[in-house]
This record gives sequence, C-alpha cells and structure tokens, in this order.
Amino acid sequence: MKISGKQYRSVWMEDGIIFMIDQILIPHEFKIIELHDVNEVYRSIKNMNTRGAPSIGATAAYGVAQAVIKHNFATIHNLGAYLDLVCAKIESSRPTARDLFHAVDYMDKGLRLAKSVEEAKKLAVKLSNNYADISVDACKKIGEFGNKILIDGAKVLTHCNAGALATVDFGTALAPVRIAHEKGKDIFVFVDETRPRSQGSRITAFELKEEGIPYSIIADNAAGHFMLNGEINVVIVGTDRVARNGDVVNKIGTYEKAVVAYENNIPFYVTAPLSTIDIDTRTGQDIKIEERDQEEVLYSYGLLDNGNFGRVRVSPEGGIARNPAFDVTPAKYITGLITEKGIIKPTEKEILRIKS
Amino acid sequence: MKISGKQYRSVWMEDGIIFMIDQILIPHEFKIIELHDVNEVYRSIKNMNTRGAPSIGATAAYGVAQAVIKHNFATIHNLGAYLDLVCAKIESSRPTARDLFHAVDYMDKGLRLAKSVEEAKKLAVKLSNNYADISVDACKKIGEFGNKILIDGAKVLTHCNAGALATVDFGTALAPVRIAHEKGKDIFVFVDETRPRSQGSRITAFELKEEGIPYSIIADNAAGHFMLNGEINVVIVGTDRVARNGDVVNKIGTYEKAVVAYENNIPFYVTAPLSTIDIDTRTGQDIKIEERDQEEVLYSYGLLDNGNFGRVRVSPEGGIARNPAFDVTPAKYITGLITEKGIIKPTEKEILRIKS
Repeated sequence: MKISGKQYRSVWMEDGIIFMIDQILIPHEFKIIELHDVNEVYRSIKNMNTRGAPSIGATAAYGVAQAVIKHNFATIHNLGAYLDLVCAKIESSRPTARDLFHAVDYMDKGLRLAKSVEEAKKLAVKLSNNYADISVDACKKIGEFGNKILIDGAKVLTHCNAGALATVDFGTALAPVRIAHEKGKDIFVFVDETRPRSQGSRITAFELKEEGIPYSIIADNAAGHFMLNGEINVVIVGTDRVARNGDVVNKIGTYEKAVVAYENNIPFYVTAPLSTIDIDTRTGQDIKIEERDQEEVLYSYGLLDNGNFGRVRVSPEGGIARNPAFDVTPAKYITGLITEKGIIKPTEKEILRIKS
Repeated sequence: MKISGKQYRSVWMEDGIIFMIDQILIPHEFKIIELHDVNEVYRSIKNMNTRGAPSIGATAAYGVAQAVIKHNFATIHNLGAYLDLVCAKIESSRPTARDLFHAVDYMDKGLRLAKSVEEAKKLAVKLSNNYADISVDACKKIGEFGNKILIDGAKVLTHCNAGALATVDFGTALAPVRIAHEKGKDIFVFVDETRPRSQGSRITAFELKEEGIPYSIIADNAAGHFMLNGEINVVIVGTDRVARNGDVVNKIGTYEKAVVAYENNIPFYVTAPLSTIDIDTRTGQDIKIEERDQEEVLYSYGLLDNGNFGRVRVSPEGGIARNPAFDVTPAKYITGLITEKGIIKPTEKEILRIKS
C-alpha cells in the first residue's frame, strides 16, 4: 500500500526485528513500531496494534521466526520443545482468527524439517517471508475475482476494515474495490463505523481517502436505511474464520448486515483467503467468540481537539457493558465466498473441493 | 422521574420560564436550563437539549404558551397571525417527530378559542400543562399494557432512549420495564449504544442505573449476535411517528433491529402514544427523514478523562459521512403497537379504530 507516496506492508521483518504499522493510531498518526521478542509480538496482537486476520497471521509467522532466530539453541534437538512454547504463547493472543493458527502451524511444520540450528534459523526467515508473500498474492487474486461482481456505478457497503492494513498488503474486502477503481469503474463505498473500535471510520475511510475512492462513513445503525432505500447494491466483508459448512465469523455486526441484505435481496459476499477456511470446524456455532474489555464500549477512543489521543466516556460512571468482538453469520445469508481460487457458494461440498 | 432522590419532569414551565433537563449533558452532569423565548425553544429542540418525541411535544406546547404569555398584544385580533409565526418557527426545529406538530396544533386550536388577550394568556398556561399531563398519563397506561407482555425473567432489547427523559415523565419503551420491575419481575435490559448520539449508552443506561434495573450496554453491532444466541426475548422501542399503515419511524437503526428480530422470531413491540400516530401520513415512505450534521458521525462526544465535556475524532481529518437520524420500519416487522388504549396490530384498520 502507498501511504504518503511510500510503499508499505502492514508488517515485515528485517535483521530479526519485526516492524509494524501501529493501527491503533491510524488515521491520526502514522507510526512504525518495532517488536523484539515473543512477548512483544503477543501484546501487539492482543492489544490490536495489528489487527485483521491476514495481518495477524503474518505477524504470528514473523513472531515464530524471530523467536527461532534469536534463541540460543544448545542443539537442534531442543527446537521442537521451544517451538511448542513459542507457538502456544502466540496462539493465546486472540482466539478467533483462523489465520493466526494457520500461520503458526505453517511455521511449526516447516521449521521441524530443519536438520541443524543454522538451517532452522535460515528457514525461519524464508518461511515467514514466504507466508507474507503468499498472503499478498491471495489478496490480489481475490481482488481480480471480486472485481467481476462490481458493475460500473456499484455502491458497496463494507463493515470493519478488510483493507491493506488488515492484510499484509492489498486487502481482502477492499481488494475488489481497489481493482474496480483502478480499472476506471465508478465505485462508491459506504463505510460502517464499526463500533466499538471504529475500524471502519478510522482505517477503511483512511485507506479509501488515500486511494481517492469516493466513500461515506455511516453509523453502524444506518446501513439498513440505505439498503431499504436502494442506495446499496452489494455488501463485501472480510472474515476471521469460515467453518466447513460455510458459516462465517467476522467482526461484530456482520451478522446483522447479512440478514438485512438478505431481506432486501442485496448480494452479500465474503472475501475469504483459503487460509481463513477451517475445515476442522464443523459450523460457526463451534467457534469460540472473543469477549473483549467492556471499556471499549463504555468509552470512545480517538483524537482529542488538542491533537492528543484520548477517549470520551459515552456511558454513566460505573456503567456496565458486554463486548463480543465477533459474530457468526450463517451460510444461508451469504451469496458467495471470494477466494484466491475463485468465487464459491458457502457449502461444505464447495469448501471441501476448493481446499483440496 | 426521581434523580438523586428528587422528583422531576423532563420539561416544565413556571412563571413564564420554561425549565428543561439538559439531555446533552446526561449522564455526566445534571443541569436544568431555562428558556425565555421562542428562539431558545427552537434551539433547544434543534440542538437536542431536549429529545424524544413526547418531550419535544411538551417543549413545543410550552414554547407556544410562553410566546403568548410574553407577547404584548394590542388586541385579541392579532393572536391568530402571531400564532401562525410562532407555530411555524417551532415546527421547523425538527421535521420528523409527529408529537411536535401534534402539540403545536393542540395549542393553536385551543388558543384560538380565546375571547380576550387575558383569557388567551390564562389558557396558554392551562393548555400546555394539560398537554404535559395527558402525555404522562399516556406513558403510565402504556407501561401497564406493556407489562403484560413481559414474563418474569424477560431479557429486553431497547434502542435509543424512550425513557422518562424522552417523555415528560415515565417513558414509553421503558415504561413496561419500569412497571414489570416494580411488580417484582426479574427483568434484564440490553441497551443499544445508539450511535451517533449515544442516547442508549448515555441516557437509557443512566435511567436504568438510577432505578436499579439490571442492564448491559452493547455496541449497536452486537444486538444481532445476542438475538441469534437466544439471549434476547423481546424488543421494545419508542417511535417518533407511526403512519396510517403501521409503518414506524424511529431512531436510525430501529429498522435493522426489527428485521433481525423478525428473522429470529423475537417479538418486536413499538410503544406509541396516540399522539405519535399520524393518520394523515399514508406510509412510512411519505415521511421526510432528517439528515443531521456529519460531525456527529465523524466524532464521538462525551466526558473527557479530565472531567470536561469534549469529543474525539474517530475518522480521518477531512473525512466524509452521512447521517440520517431516523429510519422507517415497515409494519410487517412489528408485532404490536403498545398505546395508552391497549396493544394493537400495526394495520390501517386497527389504527383507524384506535384513533377514532
């Protein structure tokens, strides 16, 4: 992605240091943070300095690689036990995103083939960069397939941020929009604010603004109004995990948008890199939904008028909130899954075919 | 309503001064503001120092009364033309709430019967107080009828604030909850935050907390998740206007909740004082929806950590937003309208019967 004219990925590694665009500060400040060990990697995922399933996956891959590079192994026989520890720590950072487990697995399996400590360290760098490259490539292909469903003049609704920052680069849900825009189609995006963390109004709006793609931020409450009034033609969102039956886990609020789109006969697409599709999970109901701190709901975070970061309380002192971070959208509401191997129906048969 | 042990109405008039609980400051500060002329009344409605259809209605009634009391009429023959001016000004403050027009009409019709300036001034006080009393009485009756649909252990979802502060006293959507709680039923309320103005997390949560009724604030995005998981038994909301065919205009987001409730077979009730039912409006599509300033979406307003009021920007600098304040929920999604004359189906036949 280009930010102020310079090319970036959301996360990368150089000389054993992991660099990351701090997404908590976007769009108010652009800052690269450095991660030096597995605890910092863990915290960057848990606290959402990085977020978005593919970005979390790449961060996890680099996290495993960094740990292996920096550790002082007495012998290669210690690698397995050490990997167990590192992988468990990173996997415990956020429970919902499939990519996190996929990335850790990918690194773990690859590294265990190393015959020497030196080989393991070289492999760590290579595998983690491969993981990131494969992820970017998948996004580009998703963009190409997704572009085909966008007519000239399309008005797209998206929820949360599944853009370049949510991925290593290029985005998932925003990839079709980017490609359609590049190809000269007239595309307009309604951007759900996406409370409580406002990833839509902060990050998606920032990306679209940088790219010169027309958009309006709307309160999460307003999407239905625009659907009912015929102002939205198609919904495209990302996903953190797709179950074998086609149920989709994504940012809280996705389910509501899907139901209302269904009721209004508006196509509802989910961009799903194959890494997010988890055939070991039977249905969406089998997926543990993360509940985050109630403070995220009781407050709103952003830029104060004085230019500092801050928060305002939007609730009574001592107020009580619940804060599920994701929800499950049953497959019946989903028109199609846009993968790097093409668009498929969200059925077990199609999912098993494309994953094979 | 009791606030810190003292009894209040949301708005009242004494010696020609209108007093009003400033709802912009709730729950962070409790402050009574005074209105001295029709321009101040206009601004208090437009800027939402008062909000909620019945509160707006009562404010409008007092606004007309105050103008008549304070004006220096040369003769009673000047009353009609003066009323035309005052009523037009107050009616232009917010376009959506039926109660505003209902209240202005009520005052206008009553005052035109006055035979002398002195009589008009006396009548102004009496009519405006009557209007407020009738409104409170309707809320109490709505609470009694609504209580019948709440089983012991009910988990209620409400959107926005249709509590005591939205009305002169007692509330519409919260009236059944209050009565059920008073009668010893175990009632839990899920409170939608209700972006962009956060009337749910600010005002509804404040009222429930003051009354000791268990609740959780949730992001507007989360209601569907709790419905799908069987954690919500019934939805109760207020309304700004009901059309003759039973379509309901209410706070933006109501439509989405209604569709998702319908899909999950969860009853969806609208508390509707007869003053909100507008038989001159054929369907919801005939109602003009107010679009408010985009700043409400681009920022979030509340209490800063230093105790001052403030805002945080939750969007890029120069970001663009759209901000419809209300939406239309078609009658098909509504289980019943809870009025002060009983619960009816949202059909033209039932509506004409109850209004006759």
